[in-house]
Amino acid sequence: MNLNQVIFREAKIQDLDRIVYLLSDDVLGSKRENYKQPLPDTYLDAFHSINSDPNNELIVACYGNDIIGVQQITFTPFITYQGGWRATIEGVRTAPIERGKGVGSEMIKWAIHRAKKRRCHLVQLTTDKNRPEALHFYEKLGFKPSHEGLKLHL
Amino acid sequence: MNLNQVIFREAKIQDLDRIVYLLSDDVLGSKRENYKQPLPDTYLDAFHSINSDPNNELIVACYGNDIIGVQQITFTPFITYQGGWRATIEGVRTAPIERGKGVGSEMIKWAIHRAKKRRCHLVQLTTDKNRPEALHFYEKLGFKPSHEGLKLHL
Repeated sequence: MNLNQVIFREAKIQDLDRIVYLLSDDVLGSKRENYKQPLPDTYLDAFHSINSDPNNELIVACYGNDIIGVQQITFTPFITYQGGWRATIEGVRTAPIERGKGVGSEMIKWAIHRAKKRRCHLVQLTTDKNRPEALHFYEKLGFKPSHEGLKLHL
Repeated sequence: MNLNQVIFREAKIQDLDRIVYLLSDDVLGSKRENYKQPLPDTYLDAFHSINSDPNNELIVACYGNDIIGVQQITFTPFITYQGGWRATIEGVRTAPIERGKGVGSEMIKWAIHRAKKRRCHLVQLTTDKNRPEALHFYEKLGFKPSHEGLKLHL
């Protein structure tokens, strides 16, 4: 795999099967996703909701015809920070076979660049404390673990 | 103040001055907000962006004619968790004089109820590690600090 030939673009509906496969092919993801054929409608509904919202972008990393990574970026206007916009990154995954080659870093750098173009003052994300290697990965990219990430499952 | 008489509703443009005052009247908020008359346009722009977005709600806690609290709730569709929607709470603030009387708890419970009505499977937020009392407050409401909250200022 040649990192220079990896392209990032918005996902199309044809990519959704592969995206869900990538999300489910993971220690934590395997417990919460439901990858099967045909895909459950909930995934299609979410795709269409994201795709029709100008403040949500589902981004795939492509190498030739292969999708080797995915991330979702949400742009949100807040009153805090003098009415500043933030970019939130979520659902970041690289294909296991392509890990450790820089695809993840390039993907996050792409998101940071996109956030600047959208005039965000902050890029944020949360990472599960059961993924210590992910924390190190994001810290190398300049992120500071200044906050506790709290979740309440309904 | 009688907690039973506190009402939660979406903010109106006339409330914005008071909202920005509440956000700025805080140890961390005073460093990043810019409360002055007239309000900087960036606050008005953010208000209108939030107000016109069906997935963003700026909520105020009212007691009689006074606004004594504020929070913003963002609803986001994700591919993860089988295409699940999440509610994110941000910019939570109670007027200093009304703290410790349960307004904050009622406000967060209101947001949780709203998230259920919007069929979210998760409510999430991040809290600055410099606010240990806030962490305790959210844990009492059922939130788990399972994640690191990472921020990158652009």
